[in-house]
Amino acid sequence: MDIALLLFDGLTALDAVGPYEVLWRIPGARVLLVAPEAGMVVTTEGTMALRADRSIDGLARADVLVVPGGFGTRKLESDEKVLAWVKRLDATTTITASVCTGALVLGAAGLLSGKRATTHWALRERLARHGAIVVEDRVVIDGKYASAAGVSAGIDLALLLAARLANETVAKTIQLGIEYDPQPPFDCGSPWKADEAIVKAVRERVGGYAPK
Amino acid sequence: MDIALLLFDGLTALDAVGPYEVLWRIPGARVLLVAPEAGMVVTTEGTMALRADRSIDGLARADVLVVPGGFGTRKLESDEKVLAWVKRLDATTTITASVCTGALVLGAAGLLSGKRATTHWALRERLARHGAIVVEDRVVIDGKYASAAGVSAGIDLALLLAARLANETVAKTIQLGIEYDPQPPFDCGSPWKADEAIVKAVRERVGGYAPK
Repeated sequence: MDIALLLFDGLTALDAVGPYEVLWRIPGARVLLVAPEAGMVVTTEGTMALRADRSIDGLARADVLVVPGGFGTRKLESDEKVLAWVKRLDATTTITASVCTGALVLGAAGLLSGKRATTHWALRERLARHGAIVVEDRVVIDGKYASAAGVSAGIDLALLLAARLANETVAKTIQLGIEYDPQPPFDCGSPWKADEAIVKAVRERVGGYAPK
Repeated sequence: MDIALLLFDGLTALDAVGPYEVLWRIPGARVLLVAPEAGMVVTTEGTMALRADRSIDGLARADVLVVPGGFGTRKLESDEKVLAWVKRLDATTTITASVCTGALVLGAAGLLSGKRATTHWALRERLARHGAIVVEDRVVIDGKYASAAGVSAGIDLALLLAARLANETVAKTIQLGIEYDPQPPFDCGSPWKADEAIVKAVRERVGGYAPK
């Protein structure tokens, strides 16, 4: 089973590595790290760098496609070459998934029209503009399309995908292996739970993604 | 504020990237990616690769040191050069932290003797051999030493460190920014919650770390 994970300049590292850490553990799975050009991609803040083993030109099919997010998706939303590849690959997958603003790339490729989907809480309006039916859940699955909310939600998404691609025992074994028994120190991980001033600060920074 | 994150061949990507994604967001923080040799390090399973910007020889001090885990720590536990560097750097830090089997490296460097600490649940006996007082909590803080349980626990650890290094508002803002409102699909992330057969399977794989 080939799982294509799209890397790109300006991605958020955890968006990609959360799902990666779960998906490579599925027996028989092979995670292919692919980017517009093979080689290094640098993250949003420009310090951490990950290696893409192949270019999108070098990958014509996959069983699963995962598109992570990050401020770099803003550029991808109008990158015709990448969007065409996403559409082509999607035609070969049984599951096409996104984390955070990766949903905006799927949306820009026209894949989420009329589909239920989610993204980072501060950018849901932008996802709706691509024709998606925005759902305020952490993970949303509509047929073969699976989307996760912001950044860390990719771990929850990937465990659900592991159950679907393999079975529940495999997913549970992976969850125990990565000791995913989260204990967030604060109860403020969603805008419904956090203080208003903090919600405002994050919305200004992340929502600044949207064009003026 | 300089935060040194130690990378090495055989690390588990999420052990490093979970804390990274939190710590770089602290205002004024600079995360330095350091490895025994500058250049690429490859993860446990040998597919994902991260770039280390500098070698340990090139870094003499830091405010914070974070050592992630992975099967590669088995080798580091007897790597005199790395252990000597960890000790030297620790003499300059205000916080020295570990994720998963990173605690075994701090232990092998002699830093956890008589200290309360934790590691991946399947390797706690091995940590005790380094003289640590093993505590079965997700994050354990004893003075300047902070340790997290397996893999994903590095996110919880890093948010606590953000509160300590900056303040609670900063930590909460980061938590909301990465939408860390986890909803694990199964309730099996610790050995006390998972089915016996699954615990056995993971213990055999991860516990295989220990020498015969």
